[in-house]
Amino acid sequence: MKKLGKQTIKFDTPPTILETASIVGPKEADGPLAKYFDKCLEDEFWGEKTWEKAESKIIKETVNTVIGKSGIATSDIEYCFAGDLLNQCISSSFGLRELNIPFFGIFGACSTFVEGLSLAAVFCEGGIKKVLCAASSHFCSAEKQFRFPLELGNQRPPTSQWTVTGAGSAIISSTGEGPYITTMTTGKIVDMGIKDGNNMGAAMAPAALDTLITHFHDTGRSPNYYDAIITGDLGHIGKEILTELAQDKGFNIKSNYNDCGVLIFDKDQQDTHSGGSGCGCCGSVFSGYLYEQMKNRKIKRLLLMATGALMNATSSQQGESIPGIAHAISIEF
Amino acid sequence: MKKLGKQTIKFDTPPTILETASIVGPKEADGPLAKYFDKCLEDEFWGEKTWEKAESKIIKETVNTVIGKSGIATSDIEYCFAGDLLNQCISSSFGLRELNIPFFGIFGACSTFVEGLSLAAVFCEGGIKKVLCAASSHFCSAEKQFRFPLELGNQRPPTSQWTVTGAGSAIISSTGEGPYITTMTTGKIVDMGIKDGNNMGAAMAPAALDTLITHFHDTGRSPNYYDAIITGDLGHIGKEILTELAQDKGFNIKSNYNDCGVLIFDKDQQDTHSGGSGCGCCGSVFSGYLYEQMKNRKIKRLLLMATGALMNATSSQQGESIPGIAHAISIEF
Repeated sequence: MKKLGKQTIKFDTPPTILETASIVGPKEADGPLAKYFDKCLEDEFWGEKTWEKAESKIIKETVNTVIGKSGIATSDIEYCFAGDLLNQCISSSFGLRELNIPFFGIFGACSTFVEGLSLAAVFCEGGIKKVLCAASSHFCSAEKQFRFPLELGNQRPPTSQWTVTGAGSAIISSTGEGPYITTMTTGKIVDMGIKDGNNMGAAMAPAALDTLITHFHDTGRSPNYYDAIITGDLGHIGKEILTELAQDKGFNIKSNYNDCGVLIFDKDQQDTHSGGSGCGCCGSVFSGYLYEQMKNRKIKRLLLMATGALMNATSSQQGESIPGIAHAISIEF
Repeated sequence: MKKLGKQTIKFDTPPTILETASIVGPKEADGPLAKYFDKCLEDEFWGEKTWEKAESKIIKETVNTVIGKSGIATSDIEYCFAGDLLNQCISSSFGLRELNIPFFGIFGACSTFVEGLSLAAVFCEGGIKKVLCAASSHFCSAEKQFRFPLELGNQRPPTSQWTVTGAGSAIISSTGEGPYITTMTTGKIVDMGIKDGNNMGAAMAPAALDTLITHFHDTGRSPNYYDAIITGDLGHIGKEILTELAQDKGFNIKSNYNDCGVLIFDKDQQDTHSGGSGCGCCGSVFSGYLYEQMKNRKIKRLLLMATGALMNATSSQQGESIPGIAHAISIEF
């Protein structure tokens, strides 16, 4: 691999995203991307007694699905990178505890899925043949943990986003027919002082801008190099902010930029305010919708950039701002 | 790099641990390793208003110390891997938000420090020159989060461990005079059904056994290859369990095995029951005591294996068991 600038790696033998899988909840099943997911659940529990156990089951079954679809034996997968939003990432560790694959837990908030793909790509470049990546989130477990008990029926402000119930998983392979992970631009933590936990889009947009511009500088590419530039979960408000900020810096992304949190829900019909969020948002939208678009060559060059808000409930109570981070990978044929 | 068996990587050009630093709290300062730490705090707050902010300051200043000691410009450090025990790893993300280095958040519970060193070594093998690793924990923020409010003054059972207030940090370099990270054995999640959150040593020991035996099988080494085999934080009880389990499997580690949680406190004088724990335990004991032993050639071959308990307060309340994980690296001259 080769460093381009300070933050980007270009892979000499770009690894292939061999297969993906996604499972989502009932609200996502009512959204415009329903047909692209491997499975849509009828309720938020999936037969489990708690939301946390349901989320573990979702990531577990998503991983089982991607392994099944790939036709690869589990024992041939050499490493797993996984993470989620629950405290101490228990969705991943409980969901994947029977997997029997060397396991690296990762935490990048909603940027986790692309963080995993980035690390997997570095491992493949180093000679590892097959790596599994997964990330999940769950609306109910996230609301309970980060905001208020759902039973309160709190009103949600217009800037708030709806945590996606779902998981995405991908198998990265050192050989294959593509789509290939060609470059990765790893984000720095960026904190512009936003303190409103109900306005994550605004908190994460400056980190997305930083990584986006760095990616263009490091690679010498311009926005129109890509068929699509897709952020993880800035939502409607964050998407608008990023578009404006990029324009101010001289990068026009208006024609080919969208966001997983915007794509996954119908803004008019589904009452999700600023759109979707959560590790499972980018995870499921990429593993479902975007991967199929690439396989069908409707998108040949994708810049996938997942964004994360690195806070918790305690930090907000203690008056802290919300640091953001964004990790980008280019995926190409 | 070359795979040995299913879980071990042998590095072709083993990266050097160029420099380390550690900062610990007042209880650790009263322990037998006090003189090896870069700084010992007089209280658990270090001038901050909350324990969480104090923990962030500890990891921040530990990282600043290791960078200062190394003489390397921050801008020459290409990546940072960091994590901690706080929900959503806020100690790392708040503590390191001004660092301005591409950042990968990791979560392996108390195995985080060695997880970071492993990933850093893979990056260096791939051509990256300098990588920073850090991990922290804090007794007060951990007790509050995982167990009971400290103000309750709860009695602690004899199996319980004392979360280390402290942080360790290391700079890994693709070139240097050693000590070198020569191999890494990445752990699988192992869950033997232990449910007692006050007996982490028992929950993590089977994972440690799995990684230990796998390491010996993969590398063809035996326990006496190493001057020292050191686990992260099994504590007194977990150390005893691992020693017995290893003996049952035909590996005698009695003469050269110890544990960071055993080393950091005085069992008789400090009333920490089963010993130390937390990401900061392995982090500070390695970065302080063990690294100096290696630099002075008192230890020339070290197997460092950090162990983590992948649970949270909610999973325990929901009757779940405690999955464990252990990541090992061999560090040699």
